[in-house]
Amino acid sequence: MDPDQFRTAAHAAIDDIINYFETLPSQRVVPTIEPGYLRPQIPSNPPTDPESWPEIQADIDTKIKPGLTHWQSPNFMAFYPANVTYPSILGEMYSAAFNAPAFNWLCSPACTELETIVMDWVAKALSLPGCFLSDSENRGGGVIQVSASDSIATVMVAARERRVRDLVLAEGLKEGTQEFGERMMDLRPRLVALGSDQAHSSTAKGAIIAGTRYRSAKAWLEDNMEMTGEGLRSVLEQCERDNLTPYYITLTMGTTNTCALDRFAEIKVVLSEKPAWQRIWVHIDAAYAGSALIAEEWQHIAQDFAEGVDSFNFNMHKWLLVNFDASCLFVRNRQDLIDALDITPAYLRNTYSETGQVIDYRNWSISLGRRFRALKIWFVMRSYGLTGMKAHVRKAITLGKTFEDLIRSRADLFEIITKPAFGLTVFRIKAPGAQANAFVVQPDEASNTLTKKVHELINARGEIFITASVVAGVQAIRVVSANEAAQESYIQRAFDIIVKTTEELLQ
Amino acid sequence: MDPDQFRTAAHAAIDDIINYFETLPSQRVVPTIEPGYLRPQIPSNPPTDPESWPEIQADIDTKIKPGLTHWQSPNFMAFYPANVTYPSILGEMYSAAFNAPAFNWLCSPACTELETIVMDWVAKALSLPGCFLSDSENRGGGVIQVSASDSIATVMVAARERRVRDLVLAEGLKEGTQEFGERMMDLRPRLVALGSDQAHSSTAKGAIIAGTRYRSAKAWLEDNMEMTGEGLRSVLEQCERDNLTPYYITLTMGTTNTCALDRFAEIKVVLSEKPAWQRIWVHIDAAYAGSALIAEEWQHIAQDFAEGVDSFNFNMHKWLLVNFDASCLFVRNRQDLIDALDITPAYLRNTYSETGQVIDYRNWSISLGRRFRALKIWFVMRSYGLTGMKAHVRKAITLGKTFEDLIRSRADLFEIITKPAFGLTVFRIKAPGAQANAFVVQPDEASNTLTKKVHELINARGEIFITASVVAGVQAIRVVSANEAAQESYIQRAFDIIVKTTEELLQ
Repeated sequence: MDPDQFRTAAHAAIDDIINYFETLPSQRVVPTIEPGYLRPQIPSNPPTDPESWPEIQADIDTKIKPGLTHWQSPNFMAFYPANVTYPSILGEMYSAAFNAPAFNWLCSPACTELETIVMDWVAKALSLPGCFLSDSENRGGGVIQVSASDSIATVMVAARERRVRDLVLAEGLKEGTQEFGERMMDLRPRLVALGSDQAHSSTAKGAIIAGTRYRSAKAWLEDNMEMTGEGLRSVLEQCERDNLTPYYITLTMGTTNTCALDRFAEIKVVLSEKPAWQRIWVHIDAAYAGSALIAEEWQHIAQDFAEGVDSFNFNMHKWLLVNFDASCLFVRNRQDLIDALDITPAYLRNTYSETGQVIDYRNWSISLGRRFRALKIWFVMRSYGLTGMKAHVRKAITLGKTFEDLIRSRADLFEIITKPAFGLTVFRIKAPGAQANAFVVQPDEASNTLTKKVHELINARGEIFITASVVAGVQAIRVVSANEAAQESYIQRAFDIIVKTTEELLQ
Repeated sequence: MDPDQFRTAAHAAIDDIINYFETLPSQRVVPTIEPGYLRPQIPSNPPTDPESWPEIQADIDTKIKPGLTHWQSPNFMAFYPANVTYPSILGEMYSAAFNAPAFNWLCSPACTELETIVMDWVAKALSLPGCFLSDSENRGGGVIQVSASDSIATVMVAARERRVRDLVLAEGLKEGTQEFGERMMDLRPRLVALGSDQAHSSTAKGAIIAGTRYRSAKAWLEDNMEMTGEGLRSVLEQCERDNLTPYYITLTMGTTNTCALDRFAEIKVVLSEKPAWQRIWVHIDAAYAGSALIAEEWQHIAQDFAEGVDSFNFNMHKWLLVNFDASCLFVRNRQDLIDALDITPAYLRNTYSETGQVIDYRNWSISLGRRFRALKIWFVMRSYGLTGMKAHVRKAITLGKTFEDLIRSRADLFEIITKPAFGLTVFRIKAPGAQANAFVVQPDEASNTLTKKVHELINARGEIFITASVVAGVQAIRVVSANEAAQESYIQRAFDIIVKTTEELLQ
């Protein structure tokens, strides 16, 4: 493909992309195809000879688009959103063109330096505590990761190494000796990572990756599915009785299931109670709801992150207008990551890195190479400005309130399960004759079955896409509408579909 | 940014990208800026109000480009290449537009299904053993990972879990009991991962991530820095004496330092000698050189991967025309990955996944979400055809031979250290009066110092970019030219620069 062919192809692709976004509202949000739909349509071997772009592009229309789930559709209200915007696409174009597996500063200095700068921008935009800025005294800073799973696995490995080193030092062994290394190995089987049972599965998966145990504190509907100080203390005490060493905990700002906020303030009090508990690495997973911190009215939440918190992540690629991947991870002490992950062979050595003048992000992540993802964050933050980003977040919260009010208006059919938060409403369909709940929703089989059926029928019809889940034994439906195309009219329509489908099934 | 603004901006970006590639040959390949160059040029806070695209794009020219290292320049001959091509950029554009964190099939079926199909294309194009195809009886298959580091960390975690489970089952404990889980934990501190000391640092890093020990077999210049069966056996026997359990080994096709090929056939004989050694997970890391398997004349190498190999990775984003990230990982038994990494909470459950009708790639990687990277691989394979991809790989190998011949033509100045392979030449500058080496190059301080100086002066001048390394104590220079712009004239010029700089320093 020569430059002129590329120009023609790219112009056609841009028109196609614009047309894709413009026509989304009129399309089914989930595809109608069945598993295996694509295989018969694609040759089983790669072509021997080159094909032209028009041939390839035609296949996108006929073969790929019919198999897409449209996350940018205004009728997409499932999971949490995954925003993409035009400036973000421009960022991907330049990122690809400036391709460099920027595993150290010298590999492409702009790639490293812009990342440090925009991560500071992000921290300031969210009013995160100053300890997460790259020029903080404590040598904190931010790094772009692929996903929250990567962010969490990375800090868990750093937490594990920091904890066993601390323990062995406390035993009086000398670092660098064989005995020291042996003892560091021997202590690992007693390590345990913690979270609430509402923490995202990435914490349990991170514990597997790091090769440690995992225990969770049970969250209760009575507490709105939030982890409490009391709940955590009972897990910590059980670990003591079992002779286990907690080394890491995920606290969640906006759980996946119900967008609950763990009770940071009271949890921190508990963690301060014993010296061993003070040494636990505290991570805040704010994958979705962290984006709300861009709006002043939510920034008070981040004040609880100032002391005693080691790291924080949120995904701009969920709600904050940058496409996947853009998981923003901030750490209080970059040396914790470097101590765990730095392995520098001869072919990666260079003066800039050796003298510590520069950041080598390869030591802040599992990957060695990395893409130039700072560009898309930079483009989006400048194209929208703080004003535009705040407006985007507030719109989704307002739409959520609208949907919540609609659900409450039909108390004969629906029951809200947990406190709606950050645009998410979690509710169930009440089976006829089900008891009214004075305090919290109770599991009941008839309602569970009915809720499940309503959910399945709605998604099968594909007019809107919503998620089912189970909250403390209660079958639930989750609705959240937070992409750029989201509008009140679609929320109203979604509500009408849910009412109609419920009434249809009740007959 | 509305659709018309996006169209205008994207057209301008495309012209800018074309112009960037066209003008690369006339630019310095490494930037002249100093660490910290960017910070003073960017406001310390994000803008409150939106900025226009022309304002943003202007900054790319004035602030970003001066800080890039140009991996697509024909004068880039450092590390290994990192190719990007026009069809690959088109893939990134569509991937961004179709944004979906496709953590399961239902999240965007096309994303999963195209990945399975193109990974089969890749396996066939490389003539990999049939066990790595998605429809193989052994249920193998390929998955796109970010980097070789991710591929390796992922299979190491799977290998660790498989091995401890095997061991505990062999002890007669019952899976699912608490005792079983406790014993799986207790055995971990004795696990050790293996590689040669020439394996990429990602294996040592993977062992840290997985929380296990790592030991390497020393490679010798006498063996061209290849890991031998004999070398491995002595490490295995030492592990036995130390009561350690090897669970994983990286064999390398094309080491980072010198592009050496470990001696697969004889290593496999050694690994078959004892039952415990037969249970070691064997991984082939072919990050760079694996791309050569697209050409028939190298495909015999992959025949050694057929039996007793559990996984294979190579990075299309190095040499095979697809931009970073596109690390292709193939496994013999997908169940090994799923057994280790599958954690399915309620909100991720759906009929398709539960019944095993579909692949959920989240269980094949550390990340939960993933980008639609199959598109760029599909576009590139179709735009080039097998013919075009073979021609690209053969061109680099021919250029390497040309460079090797030039270096050999000045035996008065240069000495080749290891057997040139797949376009890479590793050599040193001979200090005046240094002894000629009858068999293998010997470290000598004067040559080491001189080689280092030549390398530093050349990179400081920025006409070409080459890498320094140390091979068995011998200071070396590595030269490889394998991007799309590579041409014989640039190789000749690079050689002239190296000769001139050497003669200058000798005076």
